Amino acid sequence: MKNIINKKIKKIKGIDKKIYHKTELLLDRLTKPKDSLGRLEEFAKRYCAIRGEEYPKIDKKVIVAFAADHGITEEGVSAFPKEVTVQMVLNFLKGGAGINVLARHVGAEVLVVDIGVEHDFKKRKNLILNKINYGTKNFSKGPAMSRKEAEASIERGIIIADKLKSHGYQIIGTGDMGIGNTTPSSAVISVMTSSHPKDVTGRGTGIGDRAYLRKIKLIEKGIKINRPDPTDPIDVLTKVGGFEIGGIAGLIIGSSANRIPVVVDGFISGAGALIALKLAPNVKEYIFFSHISEEKGHKVLFDYLGEKPILDLSLRLGEGTGAALSISLIEAGVKILTEMATFEEAHVSQSNK
Amino acid sequence: MKNIINKKIKKIKGIDKKIYHKTELLLDRLTKPKDSLGRLEEFAKRYCAIRGEEYPKIDKKVIVAFAADHGITEEGVSAFPKEVTVQMVLNFLKGGAGINVLARHVGAEVLVVDIGVEHDFKKRKNLILNKINYGTKNFSKGPAMSRKEAEASIERGIIIADKLKSHGYQIIGTGDMGIGNTTPSSAVISVMTSSHPKDVTGRGTGIGDRAYLRKIKLIEKGIKINRPDPTDPIDVLTKVGGFEIGGIAGLIIGSSANRIPVVVDGFISGAGALIALKLAPNVKEYIFFSHISEEKGHKVLFDYLGEKPILDLSLRLGEGTGAALSISLIEAGVKILTEMATFEEAHVSQSNK
Repeated sequence: MKNIINKKIKKIKGIDKKIYHKTELLLDRLTKPKDSLGRLEEFAKRYCAIRGEEYPKIDKKVIVAFAADHGITEEGVSAFPKEVTVQMVLNFLKGGAGINVLARHVGAEVLVVDIGVEHDFKKRKNLILNKINYGTKNFSKGPAMSRKEAEASIERGIIIADKLKSHGYQIIGTGDMGIGNTTPSSAVISVMTSSHPKDVTGRGTGIGDRAYLRKIKLIEKGIKINRPDPTDPIDVLTKVGGFEIGGIAGLIIGSSANRIPVVVDGFISGAGALIALKLAPNVKEYIFFSHISEEKGHKVLFDYLGEKPILDLSLRLGEGTGAALSISLIEAGVKILTEMATFEEAHVSQSNK
Repeated sequence: MKNIINKKIKKIKGIDKKIYHKTELLLDRLTKPKDSLGRLEEFAKRYCAIRGEEYPKIDKKVIVAFAADHGITEEGVSAFPKEVTVQMVLNFLKGGAGINVLARHVGAEVLVVDIGVEHDFKKRKNLILNKINYGTKNFSKGPAMSRKEAEASIERGIIIADKLKSHGYQIIGTGDMGIGNTTPSSAVISVMTSSHPKDVTGRGTGIGDRAYLRKIKLIEKGIKINRPDPTDPIDVLTKVGGFEIGGIAGLIIGSSANRIPVVVDGFISGAGALIALKLAPNVKEYIFFSHISEEKGHKVLFDYLGEKPILDLSLRLGEGTGAALSISLIEAGVKILTEMATFEEAHVSQSNK
């Protein structure tokens, strides 16, 4: 299985520098002061360079939300009961969740992947049945999953990206659903950025002080017991991760290999991105980090990566909601490139600098 | 004329607190942790409270771009020649400018107002002919305009808001076009926030070091010669302002009086908002500040107002581009309220806190 991951990683090439610079020149001919549309111009340049297209059009957009359960929830780390994962997956499929609303708003579809929910779903439209196991194990007592399962979760994400490529999707947003999943995300980020758990652990869906302290202690304990190797991302995923985190990492790798821009949602997706980046550093050029969430560890992650998120709207819902909003801004950047008039076309005088 | 302004200001009531709190309760019933959609929820609450509607739908959106010329350009404060104001107005009307692209992207119309361009435009669709004069005078030598003209510019903005109300617009974005207009904007902000010109003056469309120093000196000189009274916003507008700045101030006052949320664009619109806020402090509840621009003085303004912009994308184009992007985010917040399923509807268990 490892072979599939490694083979895919080898396929990730640098983005098209020629088109990047050509896009820059094209943007400078448009009726605006040079660089005056700031990050929108950056989005356009990078989008074109990823896709290898000079005048792209974004009409197939998708958010892929990986759903999984977490053994650590038996310790009471979430404000919501575990069965909410299943209930929310059904809510996603009926179109009533936050991600559905925002994806519709920006013209994106929502695909849900059961990568490890403690429930057997029937076949449904927009649901991919890719279960690795019925949730992870409680990582404060032993590894969350086997190494084989960790690899399988990444692999599933890769295969989904391949399928999305064959269906013509031009931009992919990551998303998640899994009661308890800020706990493994904090654990992964703690290990891989060498941060103390208290500095990267937040209140998730909104736990009180006692549960919050317990959450930190459990992460400390999980790391102490399992001794994940920070230099081996798959070991970290195995010991203290989650299936959706692996799936997201795989989706990022697969999207990059297929030259599809991938918009990383919030904190859980950030943990997945960190694993992807450690396995394959050149996914960096394919990633758009959508927003900084209210989860404390997210800032630590951005500082560690040296990245600047697109939005700061105090979101902490996950699901792919931040990714959806950012997809619209990336599309806006691309439309600037493809729809604005040049100085010549509009008979506008240029800067006399 | 002053009467129209004062009469309109008296019509601005507080927003509907009952609906604000009711919206809060409705948002808390939706399938998400409380407050987890951060500022989107704030947008929904404020939008509903402004409109006095429980389940609003935003389908009529508009950006109003006020265009004017500036006598101060004869001193060489801009990287672009003055005729670009006319050329860009024509570009707006043909749909080729940045604001057209972004307004289309978010489903908003663009109205252009000639409030003081040095050119006689013919009647055109989407162009409002409201000229006060053929540009302002060079404020480094005397007042930019007469007090009567300053009042007229505000009044025109108010009347446009009334018209937009009668046409059923549900959200209004401010915009501007005027070569040289960061110079009066910096001057207005300098006077009204008691900041030194060097702390609120930036490079506008992209001037070099020499022009930049000259720009600061000219603002200092203009303030010294004209002695605008910081406690009298109309005097400040008269002495060192611009017609589009007055128009924007009027549009904000008129929108607020008509209970239409008004999305304030960047730096020039910020100067207009500052005048509106000083004339009528309760416009504050009706304003959404869309973004922080690259213009240095914009941060000073936000600190002074104690406001947090929605976006930070290093934009510095003006025109209404930041307002357009933010309109889509405000609409996203409203859709969260109106389209998401409740816990009950979706059979999702609630938080066990």
